[in-house]
Amino acid sequence: MSENTKKVPAVVIKRLPRYYRYLGELLKQDIKRISSNALSQKMNVTASQIRQDFNYFGGFGQQGYGYNVQYLYDEIGDILGLNDGDTTVIIGAGNLGRALANHNTFEKRGFKLVGIFDNDAAIIGTIINGITVKSIDEIDSFMKNNRVDIGILTIPKSAVQETAERLADNGIKGILNFSYTELEISKDIAIENVHLSDPMMTLSYKIKQEK
Amino acid sequence: MSENTKKVPAVVIKRLPRYYRYLGELLKQDIKRISSNALSQKMNVTASQIRQDFNYFGGFGQQGYGYNVQYLYDEIGDILGLNDGDTTVIIGAGNLGRALANHNTFEKRGFKLVGIFDNDAAIIGTIINGITVKSIDEIDSFMKNNRVDIGILTIPKSAVQETAERLADNGIKGILNFSYTELEISKDIAIENVHLSDPMMTLSYKIKQEK
Repeated sequence: MSENTKKVPAVVIKRLPRYYRYLGELLKQDIKRISSNALSQKMNVTASQIRQDFNYFGGFGQQGYGYNVQYLYDEIGDILGLNDGDTTVIIGAGNLGRALANHNTFEKRGFKLVGIFDNDAAIIGTIINGITVKSIDEIDSFMKNNRVDIGILTIPKSAVQETAERLADNGIKGILNFSYTELEISKDIAIENVHLSDPMMTLSYKIKQEK
Repeated sequence: MSENTKKVPAVVIKRLPRYYRYLGELLKQDIKRISSNALSQKMNVTASQIRQDFNYFGGFGQQGYGYNVQYLYDEIGDILGLNDGDTTVIIGAGNLGRALANHNTFEKRGFKLVGIFDNDAAIIGTIINGITVKSIDEIDSFMKNNRVDIGILTIPKSAVQETAERLADNGIKGILNFSYTELEISKDIAIENVHLSDPMMTLSYKIKQEK
């Protein structure tokens, strides 16, 4: 299936996590089948859009009576790489870093937190969610001795580029950047820049429309 | 201009904050004009897509020599309602709530934090970014005596619905929900549900593609 996924538009990729979450909710409610129409209502996306989205991945065998929820959930999880056992480290154990370290949804999605690093002597050695915070100076040796796939950056803007390059030199595969800057890096590394003020601005837009 | 904005597709609205951030970066670099081609390269969106997006709002008067950056920045800021002086409260002063209270990008975007509330006696009375955390029991009287436009929810899932309805009863206009649940509310209130694990899953997808 993966040979067909190269040209999937970014907007479709962005919808996959949403599909995955919704399907997870359906499973919790013990719902075994769902029509694209019913899924469409729940997701606020047209049924034809859903079919188009799914067609990028082979269509998931929808038939007259709808999708098999468990199958669809498993397939999308697989496409999202959630069964790959990716391991993560958090760099920056401030408020946001601590919030993410305690954010057990990451773990539920198959990501295993294996290390937390900071440069503040007052924070190094403290324990967050069962993990002892290490000095950032130990990151190179840590990455030599442990599988680390993803680096979550919750550090000041000024330190992002240097830290990202250091992780890249040590073979990181992806970076989730919460540092309010658009990280770009020359190597072949996947990057997601998260801007917490974006949903705030979208909300503000909606409020203005409702006035 | 606002009479034309009713039917703007959700994907276009989602791109507005990104445009706004990029234009802000250009202003910092003292760039006064930019062509849709140059903007397109920076934004990783086609130039024709940018023109289509902007046409929803009247096109912003692009001419042969490009867009006026300051004008475009101000117009998009206005469309996003960033000049409306919206005030916010944070409900839930845990790690994430504290991170957001200290997240000065909200303030830079024109949102004024006026209150922080929690139900934990150990946290009530502490000061975060100059604001004394109040008991959640005071929210009704606070909202009667202060303008509060937006509620930022960083509380456990189990408390979200009840808290959102309480804010709604007190006249809140919008809710930014970080509580890992898809909040739905009957009243005419704008809602943005933020799922921090979504960008993580998108990153995981990208990593899988690069393998």
